[in-house]
Amino acid sequence: MVGSELWIFVAIFAGIVSVGVAIWLYLWVNRQDAGSERAQEVASWIREGAKTYLRRLYLALTLVSVVLGIIIAIVFSFDIEHLGMGAAVINPSRGITMALAFVAGGICSALAGYMGMSVAVAANVRSAAAANESINRAFRVAFYAGSVMGLAMVGLAIIGMGTIYLFTGDPEIILGFSFGASALALLAKAGGGIYTKTADIAADLVGKVEIGIPEDDPRNPAVVADLVGDNVGDVAGMGADIFDSYVASTVAAMLLGASLFAGNLQTRYVLFPLVLCTLGIVASLIGIRFVRVGKDGKPGRALNNGTIITCAIFAVLAAAVVLLGGYNLGVLWATLAGLVTGVVIGFISDYYTSSDFRPVLETARVSGSGAAINIITGYSFGLVSVIPSIIGIVVAMLLSYYLAESSGISGVYGVGISAVGMLSISGMIVSSDAYGPIVDNARGIAEMAGMSQEVIDTTDVLDAAGNTAKAITKGFAISAAALTVLALFAAYAEVVGARGVELVISLREPVVIAGVLLGAVTPPLFSALTMLSVTHNAFDMIEEIRRQFRERPGILAGTERPDYATCVDLAAQGALSSLVIPAFLAIVLPVLVGIILGPEALGGFLGGSIFTGVIFALLMSNAGGLWDNAKKFIESGEFGGLRSDAHKASVVGDTVGDPFKDTAGPSLNTLITVMSLVSSLFAPIIAAFHLF
Amino acid sequence: MVGSELWIFVAIFAGIVSVGVAIWLYLWVNRQDAGSERAQEVASWIREGAKTYLRRLYLALTLVSVVLGIIIAIVFSFDIEHLGMGAAVINPSRGITMALAFVAGGICSALAGYMGMSVAVAANVRSAAAANESINRAFRVAFYAGSVMGLAMVGLAIIGMGTIYLFTGDPEIILGFSFGASALALLAKAGGGIYTKTADIAADLVGKVEIGIPEDDPRNPAVVADLVGDNVGDVAGMGADIFDSYVASTVAAMLLGASLFAGNLQTRYVLFPLVLCTLGIVASLIGIRFVRVGKDGKPGRALNNGTIITCAIFAVLAAAVVLLGGYNLGVLWATLAGLVTGVVIGFISDYYTSSDFRPVLETARVSGSGAAINIITGYSFGLVSVIPSIIGIVVAMLLSYYLAESSGISGVYGVGISAVGMLSISGMIVSSDAYGPIVDNARGIAEMAGMSQEVIDTTDVLDAAGNTAKAITKGFAISAAALTVLALFAAYAEVVGARGVELVISLREPVVIAGVLLGAVTPPLFSALTMLSVTHNAFDMIEEIRRQFRERPGILAGTERPDYATCVDLAAQGALSSLVIPAFLAIVLPVLVGIILGPEALGGFLGGSIFTGVIFALLMSNAGGLWDNAKKFIESGEFGGLRSDAHKASVVGDTVGDPFKDTAGPSLNTLITVMSLVSSLFAPIIAAFHLF
Repeated sequence: MVGSELWIFVAIFAGIVSVGVAIWLYLWVNRQDAGSERAQEVASWIREGAKTYLRRLYLALTLVSVVLGIIIAIVFSFDIEHLGMGAAVINPSRGITMALAFVAGGICSALAGYMGMSVAVAANVRSAAAANESINRAFRVAFYAGSVMGLAMVGLAIIGMGTIYLFTGDPEIILGFSFGASALALLAKAGGGIYTKTADIAADLVGKVEIGIPEDDPRNPAVVADLVGDNVGDVAGMGADIFDSYVASTVAAMLLGASLFAGNLQTRYVLFPLVLCTLGIVASLIGIRFVRVGKDGKPGRALNNGTIITCAIFAVLAAAVVLLGGYNLGVLWATLAGLVTGVVIGFISDYYTSSDFRPVLETARVSGSGAAINIITGYSFGLVSVIPSIIGIVVAMLLSYYLAESSGISGVYGVGISAVGMLSISGMIVSSDAYGPIVDNARGIAEMAGMSQEVIDTTDVLDAAGNTAKAITKGFAISAAALTVLALFAAYAEVVGARGVELVISLREPVVIAGVLLGAVTPPLFSALTMLSVTHNAFDMIEEIRRQFRERPGILAGTERPDYATCVDLAAQGALSSLVIPAFLAIVLPVLVGIILGPEALGGFLGGSIFTGVIFALLMSNAGGLWDNAKKFIESGEFGGLRSDAHKASVVGDTVGDPFKDTAGPSLNTLITVMSLVSSLFAPIIAAFHLF
Repeated sequence: MVGSELWIFVAIFAGIVSVGVAIWLYLWVNRQDAGSERAQEVASWIREGAKTYLRRLYLALTLVSVVLGIIIAIVFSFDIEHLGMGAAVINPSRGITMALAFVAGGICSALAGYMGMSVAVAANVRSAAAANESINRAFRVAFYAGSVMGLAMVGLAIIGMGTIYLFTGDPEIILGFSFGASALALLAKAGGGIYTKTADIAADLVGKVEIGIPEDDPRNPAVVADLVGDNVGDVAGMGADIFDSYVASTVAAMLLGASLFAGNLQTRYVLFPLVLCTLGIVASLIGIRFVRVGKDGKPGRALNNGTIITCAIFAVLAAAVVLLGGYNLGVLWATLAGLVTGVVIGFISDYYTSSDFRPVLETARVSGSGAAINIITGYSFGLVSVIPSIIGIVVAMLLSYYLAESSGISGVYGVGISAVGMLSISGMIVSSDAYGPIVDNARGIAEMAGMSQEVIDTTDVLDAAGNTAKAITKGFAISAAALTVLALFAAYAEVVGARGVELVISLREPVVIAGVLLGAVTPPLFSALTMLSVTHNAFDMIEEIRRQFRERPGILAGTERPDYATCVDLAAQGALSSLVIPAFLAIVLPVLVGIILGPEALGGFLGGSIFTGVIFALLMSNAGGLWDNAKKFIESGEFGGLRSDAHKASVVGDTVGDPFKDTAGPSLNTLITVMSLVSSLFAPIIAAFHLF
């Protein structure tokens, strides 16, 4: 039986190994052949564009970190709990520690995202070049590049959390770290979502519609911004999103452990979430080794096998540690309930968005009757797609709760652990997911650089597998976020309860209902604001593209290189400044509701935001994926094929789905996590001061 | 000080007067000049179509009434509360009374709807004929016809409720009456919504797109089905919807009165909701007299003035009765909070759907960039439009609660009364609303019968006022339903509580969260099923239209009359049979959740369904209205006008919006009311038997 405290060192060590392997893979990818000069030139545009975008993002991050860091340092320097009992006690070291943890959370997430983006823009051209040789080799370049972000992410997260706990022993400080990661995720995910669709829509409207040049034509000044968008949204954005959920679920379970256990057991169960993260890293490292495309060349199967192997290894390791370590069996059941549900929901998402099943086929079939019918049908299936995932989340929650209770351990802690169990294999999940945009870009480069049809066909096969992996990850990410925020919700109640306010969040109380209703409209409002930003920014960018064509006629003639960087910069700046109001809402609304309507109403507010946040996230992501694949299915020659009326209708659906699935839908995860974290973080203050 | 019991007789008397005036107006409308022979012929097609539809609807209603009536009679014959305490006590008279109340509820609502439909199809041609003479006269014909339904509805409702209370003295029996009205509303509103859009889409796709004949061309076999649809959805459907909310809010407040007051006060406060209904009828009767179009011919202003005068009279009467009758002042504040909020939310809906304001203008402006941008923008504004209404509902709820509490009376009772206060002026609201489809049809008849341009222009002015009234009523109906279901929710908890089960619906309990999540996905599922039915049924109907054209070539040549009735029948049958699954879900799901997960989870389920039900209802209704008016604005010559690219894009938005605003959105009111009523009705049984 290993002493509980030793696990902190094991966890930090596992994190260091994980980051080490990530760096090794990073160097390995960069050593691969970068292909022809033309391909390298195209890739360099994307690389430069990505750098321009990241510069903007990190500038915004720095601003946000400084402002919020100062506020946090000041607020947490007051010893609020004893404020009512006489003179204010000032304890600046706690304030500064909290602010540092906050900044560290943002930096760790940004660092993982930076590594992921850098390797992705290096790997795309190398994967295309390797496709010349064999599909196996091209797959390995792309997948190992994806693994860089997966491993860096889980590694940096566990190093950060472990180190903070080692030095402070206080899970509430890790809340600050988690909040930092969430604030970055909000910028990276929602900002990236607005950025990528702004570039996409503007490039299409001027290029394809006004001028009549093909998609991905290098004469279009917005083409690089568009290609960078894939990496921005799907690599950096998704990475930050899962980093956020990963840390938040761990800290929620640690907080629950701290308040629901006492004495000797406390440290054991506070640390158990970190134990699970450690085992997940080990399982992911082994699982990644097993991802190989066999002689039959089926990359989709390779990715799925990797996920299943990782799950199996993780389950065995968790069982061994629980049994040998003398932990309560309830935590094992909770872990497994979360793990299985996460994977099952991922595969269910695939049903609603894959052209092998009825929803996509039916939507494609009715498209012949016009765009409106395509939209109504796709939207309706999107609504239906919410049901199985919600049932999955409900089952995971009830199972983990009652299995823990019946094993004689707190049911609420069980729910927290099930979220950690689900997210523990994030290293593998993110690796598969980041693979997608890399091969997508590889395909774009192969086409723009005029590579052979054989190479393009190979990258097509790789790309199709990436799309499935992406659909699965999105379902996984949303359901993991849902369980995480439910755990955070419980943690919020415990943090308030620890301040002597017995929190009863009863739906029979009008203030709670008021809180739920106000919370429930926040995610739709956030979605609307981000989508309206996309169309608004796209119109600005259209002006810039027209200006370049007008002022420099050489561009259209093909004799002059367009100014790609200005377009990237414009889209990035627009996206980040559009986020000011929504991000402000996310951070300020929970505090306002708590201070005005009280901690019960804030509980209702969080509940309401979780309920509609998860529903809208699933609806928008799945409907968007469905429209995309219905269009692709028609393009493959079905129901009239390319340029038929059905195809035109499906293009409208796909364009509507773009901001649904890439801007509004997936950033709702981050929104609800940020709001839950803000509430837990400020819970002690709200418990002390509130009007109602 | 009038004795409380006397109010029952006053209420029933007011109901009889209201129905009497409705009959008198009905006869008056029928005495008006019915215009040219050609106009009468066109009108006769619509009349016959409406009859065909109503036959189908009443057949379905009879079936549902018989089946549910028998179940209710059996279930309520067992004295469930004493079942655990020995032998089952059987009390068939209670079962039969409940079943009779249920059937009576359906019949009263159907009767009001029948009167409304009959007078509407008589009034449309007469209003068109009167438009030849003056706008004032045409307006009066249409508005008085609308008043027939408004007055019949409130009259029959109060007669039904008063009579039941007079004979049984038990508000729980009135729940049965309310459930009967709700079951009919579900058929009339959701069925009508599916019917009208099936006909609309099928008529357009074959007529305009395939064959290339104009809209409203009498050669199109689906044209009558389409015209009937306006009356079906907007007259009969909206009437049944408000009837449903009107009765449900009254019974909820009566139930709260019964459980929250004791002794002498009990009867007073159980009857107070009926007092408010009575005063509302008096105010509406006076208000209707004041609705006149002056010399300047502004029908919109006339309708708004009527509403404001009715509100003012009602407020004065309520103040007088509360003060003179010695009621607690808290009920007056609650009444006024509800009344003001209802009207304010109605006018806010107008902001998001009127072409005088930014949302519609902005959506119209971006339409030049394609259908997808139109959809994204309109949908986003639809999401934003939810916020002010929700804030209004929250304010009304908190105000009525705290004003009642601070006056020393139960806050929950105050919330119940605020819903009644909001709905008390339903007589006037429904009159204005039913006016809309009548003048809409009058315009259609004027065009089809080849009346002069002057007449068409007059009917255009009348029609525009109708659209504004419709937007206001929709906002009013949804917010009224929201407050009503919140009151029903409280009533449910009280009914369970009265059975000795102290109901704590805490969001910290996993079963409650499970209930909320399951409840929250029910409205989106219901919306999706109804919308998928629309497209599915439209394809069946398209086959029928094609068959008629193919087998009887005389139709297209104009020498043979198409078989309008078959199309009406097909759409009606399709709509009602599509409802089997959704209606089954609405009735069975709450009972299942209650029996399996227990009464706390059922409380969560109801809460969840209310939260998302209101949000989706507002989103879909407002987005639909917005797209409709953006298209009309472009058609008026802005942003390129008719046949421009912007116009084509706006047509797609309008077609998507059609099932949003006329099928899926507004029937969610009814869904959540039905589910809340079922829960309250079966609460005693669920309190006695449940697994968790």
